[in-house]
Amino acid sequence: MKISIIGATGYTGAELLRILASHPAAEVVYITSESQPGTAINDIYPHLIRFYEKALVSLADLDKIAAESEVIFIGLPHGHAMEVGRKATAINPKLKVIDLGADYRFKDHDVYEQWYKVAHTHREAEAVYGLTELNRSQIRDSSIIGNPGCYTTASILALAPLVQRQLLDLSSIIIDAKSGVSGAGRSLNLGSHFTEVFENVKAYNVAGHRHTPEIEAVLGELAGERLVVSFTPHLIPVARGILSTCYATLKAGVTPEAVDEAYTSSYGQEYFIRLLGRGGYPVTKNTRGTNFCDLGWHIDSRTGRVIAIAAIDNLVKGAAGQAVQNMNVMFNIEERTALEAAPLYP
Amino acid sequence: MKISIIGATGYTGAELLRILASHPAAEVVYITSESQPGTAINDIYPHLIRFYEKALVSLADLDKIAAESEVIFIGLPHGHAMEVGRKATAINPKLKVIDLGADYRFKDHDVYEQWYKVAHTHREAEAVYGLTELNRSQIRDSSIIGNPGCYTTASILALAPLVQRQLLDLSSIIIDAKSGVSGAGRSLNLGSHFTEVFENVKAYNVAGHRHTPEIEAVLGELAGERLVVSFTPHLIPVARGILSTCYATLKAGVTPEAVDEAYTSSYGQEYFIRLLGRGGYPVTKNTRGTNFCDLGWHIDSRTGRVIAIAAIDNLVKGAAGQAVQNMNVMFNIEERTALEAAPLYP
Amino acid sequence: MKISIIGATGYTGAELLRILASHPAAEVVYITSESQPGTAINDIYPHLIRFYEKALVSLADLDKIAAESEVIFIGLPHGHAMEVGRKATAINPKLKVIDLGADYRFKDHDVYEQWYKVAHTHREAEAVYGLTELNRSQIRDSSIIGNPGCYTTASILALAPLVQRQLLDLSSIIIDAKSGVSGAGRSLNLGSHFTEVFENVKAYNVAGHRHTPEIEAVLGELAGERLVVSFTPHLIPVARGILSTCYATLKAGVTPEAVDEAYTSSYGQEYFIRLLGRGGYPVTKNTRGTNFCDLGWHIDSRTGRVIAIAAIDNLVKGAAGQAVQNMNVMFNIEERTALEAAPLYP
Amino acid sequence: MKISIIGATGYTGAELLRILASHPAAEVVYITSESQPGTAINDIYPHLIRFYEKALVSLADLDKIAAESEVIFIGLPHGHAMEVGRKATAINPKLKVIDLGADYRFKDHDVYEQWYKVAHTHREAEAVYGLTELNRSQIRDSSIIGNPGCYTTASILALAPLVQRQLLDLSSIIIDAKSGVSGAGRSLNLGSHFTEVFENVKAYNVAGHRHTPEIEAVLGELAGERLVVSFTPHLIPVARGILSTCYATLKAGVTPEAVDEAYTSSYGQEYFIRLLGRGGYPVTKNTRGTNFCDLGWHIDSRTGRVIAIAAIDNLVKGAAGQAVQNMNVMFNIEERTALEAAPLYP
Repeated sequence: MKISIIGATGYTGAELLRILASHPAAEVVYITSESQPGTAINDIYPHLIRFYEKALVSLADLDKIAAESEVIFIGLPHGHAMEVGRKATAINPKLKVIDLGADYRFKDHDVYEQWYKVAHTHREAEAVYGLTELNRSQIRDSSIIGNPGCYTTASILALAPLVQRQLLDLSSIIIDAKSGVSGAGRSLNLGSHFTEVFENVKAYNVAGHRHTPEIEAVLGELAGERLVVSFTPHLIPVARGILSTCYATLKAGVTPEAVDEAYTSSYGQEYFIRLLGRGGYPVTKNTRGTNFCDLGWHIDSRTGRVIAIAAIDNLVKGAAGQAVQNMNVMFNIEERTALEAAPLYP
Repeated sequence: MKISIIGATGYTGAELLRILASHPAAEVVYITSESQPGTAINDIYPHLIRFYEKALVSLADLDKIAAESEVIFIGLPHGHAMEVGRKATAINPKLKVIDLGADYRFKDHDVYEQWYKVAHTHREAEAVYGLTELNRSQIRDSSIIGNPGCYTTASILALAPLVQRQLLDLSSIIIDAKSGVSGAGRSLNLGSHFTEVFENVKAYNVAGHRHTPEIEAVLGELAGERLVVSFTPHLIPVARGILSTCYATLKAGVTPEAVDEAYTSSYGQEYFIRLLGRGGYPVTKNTRGTNFCDLGWHIDSRTGRVIAIAAIDNLVKGAAGQAVQNMNVMFNIEERTALEAAPLYP
Repeated sequence: MKISIIGATGYTGAELLRILASHPAAEVVYITSESQPGTAINDIYPHLIRFYEKALVSLADLDKIAAESEVIFIGLPHGHAMEVGRKATAINPKLKVIDLGADYRFKDHDVYEQWYKVAHTHREAEAVYGLTELNRSQIRDSSIIGNPGCYTTASILALAPLVQRQLLDLSSIIIDAKSGVSGAGRSLNLGSHFTEVFENVKAYNVAGHRHTPEIEAVLGELAGERLVVSFTPHLIPVARGILSTCYATLKAGVTPEAVDEAYTSSYGQEYFIRLLGRGGYPVTKNTRGTNFCDLGWHIDSRTGRVIAIAAIDNLVKGAAGQAVQNMNVMFNIEERTALEAAPLYP
Repeated sequence: MKISIIGATGYTGAELLRILASHPAAEVVYITSESQPGTAINDIYPHLIRFYEKALVSLADLDKIAAESEVIFIGLPHGHAMEVGRKATAINPKLKVIDLGADYRFKDHDVYEQWYKVAHTHREAEAVYGLTELNRSQIRDSSIIGNPGCYTTASILALAPLVQRQLLDLSSIIIDAKSGVSGAGRSLNLGSHFTEVFENVKAYNVAGHRHTPEIEAVLGELAGERLVVSFTPHLIPVARGILSTCYATLKAGVTPEAVDEAYTSSYGQEYFIRLLGRGGYPVTKNTRGTNFCDLGWHIDSRTGRVIAIAAIDNLVKGAAGQAVQNMNVMFNIEERTALEAAPLYP
C-alpha cells in the first residue's frame, strides 16, 4: 500500500509514522508540511532515525501525491482537510482518504457547520465515521473515513453498548474526561507550556467542546433518538492517555447482569477492547502506545447509576492507531497489523 | 498557644509544621510518632531544618502532652483519633482538639460506623464539623473539631450555595474529583509508587469512597432533606491539588443570575474563597501551598445543568490549612494568621 | 520602600510579586509590561488574586516610575536592562537598581560583550555582583546590583569555600547542573512545550552556556587567578529547582576535615545556607519556594576528588528571592524579611 | 526457543515479557515468582492482557523449568542469581543463561565480592559480559551472560571508542548520570514514593555506586590498564530513561576529527547505536521503549575536554532489550528481532 501523510509534523503525523514503520504492507511515499518543506522528517523528529530518511514535501505537489498514493492520511486543521480530500479524490478517484480531523465525521453537515464555524465544502463525499468497532462493515466498503476524535472514541466505546440496548435514561448522560497534553498538539501555546501544566489540572471548554456533538450524533443514532450529553474535558499533566468517566442513570429494572451482558455481547470478540469487567478499573498507562481501549463499569445501587470508565492512548486508539486499524479494514488486511505491540508499562 | 501534633510524620503533620512555623502566636510543644520516637523531626523532614529541632515523642506520654498543651491536632488513622481525643480531654478538660481524620466528622455515628467499620467510642464528644466557611460560629464555641476531608471540602464548597438555596434537583448531583498523590499519605503502597502513578490516571473506590457520606451529610443538612450523590475520586500524577467537578440539574426556572447570586452572597466576603465567576476555570496550581478554594461555575443551557468547579490544595484547605484556620477561629485570632502567603506558581 | 518591577509578566516578575506580597515594608508602586500594558496583573496570573489588583504600565512612563520609586527590579532581556538602568538612575539618582539579568554581572565588560554579543552601554555604573553571602558588605553600600544567574548561584556557593582556601586543582572543575523548566521562562518555545519535556532529560549549550563566564569570573576572583570550568546545564521535567553537582580534584594533602572546615567556616553563620555536611544529599524539593541553598559534599578517596552538591529553587535563591535578600541588605532591613516561609514539601 | 523468566514480577521481568511478546521465535514456558506463585501474570500486570495468560510458578520447580527451557533470563537480586545459574546449568547443561543482575558481570570475582559483599558461588561459570556491541563474538559462543547494568551500558558506550583508541587522559573520567525511577524497581521504598520523587532531583550513592567497578573493569580492559572513574547517579522524576554525561580530558594533540573518527569507526555499522555526531544532543525520550543508544559528543576547546552524552531506555538497552539482543546473538537469530519498534514519542 502506497501511503501519504498530509500534515505530518504534528504529533498525530509522527504517531502514524511510528505505527506504519512496523507495517509490513505499508510504504510511505509522501509526507507533507507547509511550514517545513524540504526538511528531513528525522531532523524534526530524531526519534525516527533508522525508520525514515524522507524529506517533507509541500501540498503544492498534491497532483503527484494523490496520483501516486493508494491511501492518504490527513492531519490538517478542520476546514483544510476537506479541501484536500475533495481535490485528491478528484485527481485519483480510487484513492482512499482517512481524515484524522473533524471534516468528515458528521453526517449532518449543519451540525458540523454550527460547531466548527466553517462552511462544509465537500458535502457530496460518502464519508463513514471510523469508529471501527461500531462501523466495521461500512468502513470496509468506504473510501473516505472521518476518523473519530480522541475523547469521542473513549466516551462512545464506554457508552455504546448501554445506549444501544436502551438501558439508560438518555437525558442523564454525563462524561467527565481527562486527557494528556499531546491531544493539544505540537503548536505552541501557553496552555501546553510545561511550567503551566506541571502539577496542575484544569477543566476547559465546559459545555462547549466540539467533541460533544460528535458523541451525541453517534450515541443518538444508536439510541434511535436525539440526545444531549454533558461533556467536560480536563487537562492533566501526562503526555499520552485519556480516561473517560461516564455517568448515566439506569432505567428502572435494569440489572447489573444486563449491563455486564451488554458489554460482553458487544465487545467480547473485539481484540482491541479489553473488558476489565464490573468493578474493573482501567488506567491509561496500561494502554500506552497501543490501540487498546480498556473498559470497566460500576453499578452504584445507592444512586441507580452506572459509571463506565474507558482508558485509551489518545494518539493511538484516539487517533493514528485507529486510523491504521481503519486502513487495514479498508484494504482487507488483518486488522491488528502494525498494532500488535504490547503496552509500554511502566 | 501551646500546640501538640499527634501523629506528626505523615504529610498532614509535616504540613501543619510548615504552616505553624509562620504563626506568630503558635508554640509547638510536642510532636508524636509511634514509629520513630526519639528521632528529630528534621531528620525525617530535612526541609524543616531552621524551623524545628524537636525530637518526636511517643503517645505513651499523653498525660504530659495533654496537660501542657492548649490545642492538639490529631493526624492518626480513624479509630485511633477518638481514643486520643477521649483520653486527652479527660486529662485536660480545657484542651481544644482538632482531628484531621474522620472520627469526629459525623453527627450520625451510625453512618460513621457503617462506612468506617469501627465502633465509635467517643459519642459524647460535642464535635463540630470544621468546614470553616459554613460553621464558623459553632467552631468558635467548640472544643472538638472534626476537620473535613480533602475531597469533601472542595465538593461541599462548590455545591453548598446552590443546595442551600434549593436551586438543584437533589437527586442529580454527581461529583467527579481529581486528586494529587499526597492525599494518599506517606505510607508505602504500590498505588503511590512513582512509576505506577507517573503518566497515568485512574479512578478508584467508585461508588464506595468514604468521603461520600460526609458530603451527603453536610449537603443534606443544608438542603433540609436526605440526599445521595455519586462521587468518583481519581488519582492524577501531581503531588498536591484537588479539582472537584460537580454536576447537577438546575430546577426549572433557575436563571444563571440566580446561580451567580448564590455564590456571591454566600462567599463574597470570604477571604479564602476566590470566586472566578460564571465561566471561570479554577486550576489547582493557583492554590498551591495556600488555603484558598478557587471556584468557577458554568451553565449548560443545552442540558439544564450547572457545572461547578472547585480547586484547592488538598494538604492546606483540604487538611492542615483549614485546621489552622479553625484553630484561629477557636482562639479568636485573625483567621488568616499563618495562612497569608501567596500561592507557589508556577 | 516604594518598589517598581520592570518586566513583570515573566516568571521572575511573578515570583518577585509573590515574595513581596509578604514583605511588611514593601509597597509595589508600578509593574510594567510592554506586551500587555493596561491588563491587570491578576488577569495574567490569577494566583495573585487577593494580593495585587494593579494594572501593568508601559516603560514609556519610565520618568514617573523612576521618580516615584526607591528601588526597581529589572526583569528584562539582556541588553535592555542596562538601558533602563542608565535612564532610571539619571532620572532619580537616589534610585536603587536590582537587575535580574546579566547586564550588571560582569566587572570585565569585554567578557560580557564577548558572551552576550551586545555592546555594554552603561559601563560607568558602579554595579555590585549580588551573591549576597559573598558580597554582603559591598551590596549594602551599592546602588546597582547585578543579581546572579540561577546556575551560577548554586555552583558558586558549592565551590567558593574550597576555591577561596586554595584546596582545589583549579584546572579540574566540572559542574554538571540540572534545572527545572521555569528557568527557561514563560516565552513559548518547543523546548518548553509540555510533551517535549515530559519524561525526558537533555543537556543543552554544552561548553557554551552564558553562565560559564559568570562562574569563572567569581571563582577566579576568589582564587586570585584566572580559571576555566566545564559547565553543562541539563533540563529536567520539573518546574522549579536546580541541582548543581560539582567535581574537582583536591590538591595533594587536603584532608576531608579541611574540606568540612572550609564549608563550616564560610557558611556556618549563614541563615540561607543549610549545610548537610560531608556525605549529605541536598535535594531540590527541600528548598522549594524558599531562599535556601542546601549543600552537601563527598570525598572520593579513590579518585582524589571532592563532589559538592548544591540545591536551590531557581526562581527564589536563583532569582527573585536573592534579589529581595539584596534589597533587604541595601535598605538595612533584616535580611530574612519576606523570605522566612518554610519550603513547600512535598 | 523455549524461554523461562526467573523472577518475572519486577519491571525487568515485565519488560522482558513485553519485548518477547513480539518475538516470532520465542515461546515463554515458565515465569517464576516466589512472592506470588499461582497468580496469573496479567492480574499483576493488566497491561499484558491479550499477551500472556500464564500463571507464575515457584523456583521450587527449577528442575522442570531448567529441563524444559532452552534459555532462562534471571531477574533476581544479586547473590541469588548465581545460585539459580549454577543449579540450572547442572540440571540442563545445554541451557543458556542470561542474568540481568550483577552476579556474572565481573571477570575478577574479588572485585565483585568487595563491592557486593557476598561470596561468589559460581566462579567456574564461563560467563561473558553482555554488552553486545563490544563483545558480540564472545556472546555468540557463550552460554552464560552477565547482562550489563543500565548506567554502565550508557556510560561505557559513550566512552569506549575514545578509551580504546587511547585518546583520553584516563585519570580524568567523570560520569554524571541521570536515571528514571523504574531503575529502582517495583519494590516499595520511600525513595520511589511518588510524592518524594515528584518535582525533585537528587544525587545518591556518590563515590559508592556498584556500577562504578563495572565501568572501570570494562573501560580498563579496553584501555589496557587499570583506571578509576568518578561516577555519580542521580534520580530524576521520569519512569524510563538514562542520560549519561561523560567528561574526560583529551590527550594533547587529539583533534576533534579524531574523536569523530573514533565514534564512527566503532559504531558506524551498529544498528542500535545512533550517532548524532559532534555537537549532537541525545535525549532520553527519543529512545523510549527501544533498544537504541543515542550518542552525541562535544569538544570544549577552552578546557581541553570531550563531553560525550549517551541516552538509553534503562529498561530496554539498559536491561531487558539488551538481554533479548544477546539472546538473538546466542541463537544466531537476526539481532534486531523483537527490537524493531520505533520509539514512543512523545
